[in-house]
Amino acid sequence: MQERTSVNNPQIKAIGKLSQKKYREESGYYLIEGFHLVEEALKAKAKYREILATPPALKRLESLGLEFDQDKLIKISEGVARHLSSTKNSQDVFMTVKINQPEHFDFNYGKWVLLDDLADPGNVGTIIRTADAAGFDGVILSNRTVDLYNPKVQRSMQGSQFHLSLIKADLPEAIASLQAADIPVYASLLDPQAKQLGDFAPQAQVALIIGNEAHGVSADIAALADEKLYIPIKGRAESLNAAVAAGIMIYHFS
Amino acid sequence: MQERTSVNNPQIKAIGKLSQKKYREESGYYLIEGFHLVEEALKAKAKYREILATPPALKRLESLGLEFDQDKLIKISEGVARHLSSTKNSQDVFMTVKINQPEHFDFNYGKWVLLDDLADPGNVGTIIRTADAAGFDGVILSNRTVDLYNPKVQRSMQGSQFHLSLIKADLPEAIASLQAADIPVYASLLDPQAKQLGDFAPQAQVALIIGNEAHGVSADIAALADEKLYIPIKGRAESLNAAVAAGIMIYHFS
Repeated sequence: MQERTSVNNPQIKAIGKLSQKKYREESGYYLIEGFHLVEEALKAKAKYREILATPPALKRLESLGLEFDQDKLIKISEGVARHLSSTKNSQDVFMTVKINQPEHFDFNYGKWVLLDDLADPGNVGTIIRTADAAGFDGVILSNRTVDLYNPKVQRSMQGSQFHLSLIKADLPEAIASLQAADIPVYASLLDPQAKQLGDFAPQAQVALIIGNEAHGVSADIAALADEKLYIPIKGRAESLNAAVAAGIMIYHFS
Repeated sequence: MQERTSVNNPQIKAIGKLSQKKYREESGYYLIEGFHLVEEALKAKAKYREILATPPALKRLESLGLEFDQDKLIKISEGVARHLSSTKNSQDVFMTVKINQPEHFDFNYGKWVLLDDLADPGNVGTIIRTADAAGFDGVILSNRTVDLYNPKVQRSMQGSQFHLSLIKADLPEAIASLQAADIPVYASLLDPQAKQLGDFAPQAQVALIIGNEAHGVSADIAALADEKLYIPIKGRAESLNAAVAAGIMIYHFS
């Protein structure tokens, strides 16, 4: 087993840089941390390059009884663990996981959520977690939506990336592909003139477009939708949080 | 008009300390910031002690055409504004608002959300905002739920404190008061044996108990509920985010 005790070691430095999108894209890997995520990744047979753990964390990892590649294991010091961690309470276990983005995807079945330029990583992760809980098939992220492998997105989606398809795509192309397969596409708008959520019957296949936190679904994307959908605001709040609005819609159609 | 340009001024120091719960309780005031919240507070005729603004912010505030007490106005420097702000992008306008907690409250009508020891300020604020949007009458916070006047709660509830009743209470007493008024009390549990959300008919009056993010609704509180309620998990996520789960339930009953 290899051992790394210095944050200046070139391999550790390279792994530390995976917190930045640029280096994730260059290397094709992203970093996950904590027992729950590492366990989910191993169970899902995700491809990975390294598992890094301090001696106590390694002991706990081995006690979980999961199979992993001993050649990829690196023993690290607590200092290295602190350097790699993006949280205050690190569990001292990390894994570099291969980014798995298909070149092309046919959206020809199922239930999908489309994210139109969402900016808040907590919202993106929470929406993916909700889509997973509701048994949706996947989430489609517009090119300007916050990066899926951002550590805050990772934390809030809690391993759901190993359960459903997460696909970065050009939204107009994805919408055309969904519509070609007769999957209805609904855009959520803060517009009392739109059709109310309660008037939509549950259905076997559906695609829901969620808009940016400040600007909503962009006009050109909304124009492509089969129907515009409104969650009624009955009180005096001006709007709902994007992840809450998405959750209400996702469960309505689950 | 008074003017404060030093962060060492005793009045400014006292206002700065309102970021801490201890000083909010001592003084009976909390601090809000930003035009949206100050405007909501003025519209709602909330009681306040001071309005603080830099000269450009004051100009903008006056342009909103709202009535406010000129005697309570304090002109501050940008340095003082930075000192008081809890955000990176301060709007340079602040208000010390009176904490308005009734000694006693009869829960004898309406729709309520009960928070059982919620720990995350973003969740608490978001749930209050959602209850407001759905036209609920109020939110009841258990004594160990994160403090309502925490700056992060303030930011995520976006002024909803001026729209609905927010009451800190002993949950068993509140539940007894609701039940005495024939308002059904439902506890949300992550338990597939409980009655599914979809099996509950919408109703004119209801109280929904939301549990702590890590531990759920505590057993002694759940035991007081008229019915246990479960949002079905159809996919592989282990649970839903607390604010999303609350949103799905609140809208089901709105």
